[in-house]
Amino acid sequence: MGYELYYWNGLQGRGEFVRLALEEAGADYVDVTRQPERGTSEMLALLKSDSEPHLPFAPPILKDGEILVSHVANILAYLGPKLGLAPRDEAERWFANGLQLTITDFVAEVHDTHHPIATGKYYEDQKPEAKARSAAFISERIPKFLGYFERVLNQNPKGNRHAVGDRLTTVDLSLFQVLEGLAYAFPKAMARVSGQYPALEALQAMVGTRPNIAAYRASPGRLPFNEDGIFRHYPELDVG
Amino acid sequence: MGYELYYWNGLQGRGEFVRLALEEAGADYVDVTRQPERGTSEMLALLKSDSEPHLPFAPPILKDGEILVSHVANILAYLGPKLGLAPRDEAERWFANGLQLTITDFVAEVHDTHHPIATGKYYEDQKPEAKARSAAFISERIPKFLGYFERVLNQNPKGNRHAVGDRLTTVDLSLFQVLEGLAYAFPKAMARVSGQYPALEALQAMVGTRPNIAAYRASPGRLPFNEDGIFRHYPELDVG
Repeated sequence: MGYELYYWNGLQGRGEFVRLALEEAGADYVDVTRQPERGTSEMLALLKSDSEPHLPFAPPILKDGEILVSHVANILAYLGPKLGLAPRDEAERWFANGLQLTITDFVAEVHDTHHPIATGKYYEDQKPEAKARSAAFISERIPKFLGYFERVLNQNPKGNRHAVGDRLTTVDLSLFQVLEGLAYAFPKAMARVSGQYPALEALQAMVGTRPNIAAYRASPGRLPFNEDGIFRHYPELDVG
Repeated sequence: MGYELYYWNGLQGRGEFVRLALEEAGADYVDVTRQPERGTSEMLALLKSDSEPHLPFAPPILKDGEILVSHVANILAYLGPKLGLAPRDEAERWFANGLQLTITDFVAEVHDTHHPIATGKYYEDQKPEAKARSAAFISERIPKFLGYFERVLNQNPKGNRHAVGDRLTTVDLSLFQVLEGLAYAFPKAMARVSGQYPALEALQAMVGTRPNIAAYRASPGRLPFNEDGIFRHYPELDVG
């Protein structure tokens, strides 16, 4: 039996980082909440279970037989070696996992651009604060994170085509997703920095055109970015 | 040679989660920035290196010979098995790592109670937003996270003394640190929920009185909480 991925239906969200790894590897998996006969109720039952010994806090959740793994970086650490998307070298694996956690932090900061005060409140109820947080995010955090990842690529002793080592890993796939998401959410801000991160831009193009990723992107499985996800396009949060 | 821990001097911060594991295990380690002959400059040189192949984004960073590991959850995943603080069972290890990442998220939310708009700005420049974010954190997020961890303890098939399995892991140590930190930062809010999370309170007491942890807490190595760290006591952010 294949992998079972549990994530909110109707958005890419954090689940997309897992989907990209599964799709690149051509792995056998089902997106549980998108199955008409299963649906979101099955995921909610898992989250509300009063008997599950390995209770997850939130989606995404991967089920592989009896093993339940939650959190993007944890799922990718689990899947990477099985899908041939992890470095072979031990030191490189710990480095890759650290990069994946830096991406996790970056993604959390993207989320907070539209929800700076309370996750439980609507964006519309925290718009002025979202504007302030987005301005700081664009001016300080995007350069800090993208500058860091650009350095990582350029300091890779095996070449700047990959974040770690000389082959594709989940980190490359996740960086692609972050760059796609930022271009969707902040198109004007990202246009202004076009050309400033050449190694990252080359990586984004390389990942996006890999056969399995290109096929996935052209399929209905790849939902478009939208305003229910992490990367949301609110023009008022972008630069003018 | 022992482990080398790189973290900002003068505060507990995220480094403390690593220190608690090293102290509990009686491991041989040095806190690099606290060594007069080494200091913070050595850590900054690592962060600014233009040749380090496994460049870290931010402290804490653990160096073990040739291996460099960054991010708390990554460091604890690395150290756990070596220090006898990880579950033995594979499914339990993935679960423990997921719990550690939920703690990471919780800690990031604690940080944002005093820095909701911009990490790069002073707390004093974002006080009204900090007040709003703290109110939501206290009313919604503390119950959500602590309620979750209480359920995890109570659904542990091996008993509610530990988060995972029947022995102490880094997750228990980290939960202790979170509970200590919350009591420091939000004493009135935490006093109001006293008794509501009995399994967590028992775990906090159990960890705090373990011989190595008690000795560490009584030593100068355990810095007091302060307003440079993650858990900050600003009375105006607590309940009235």
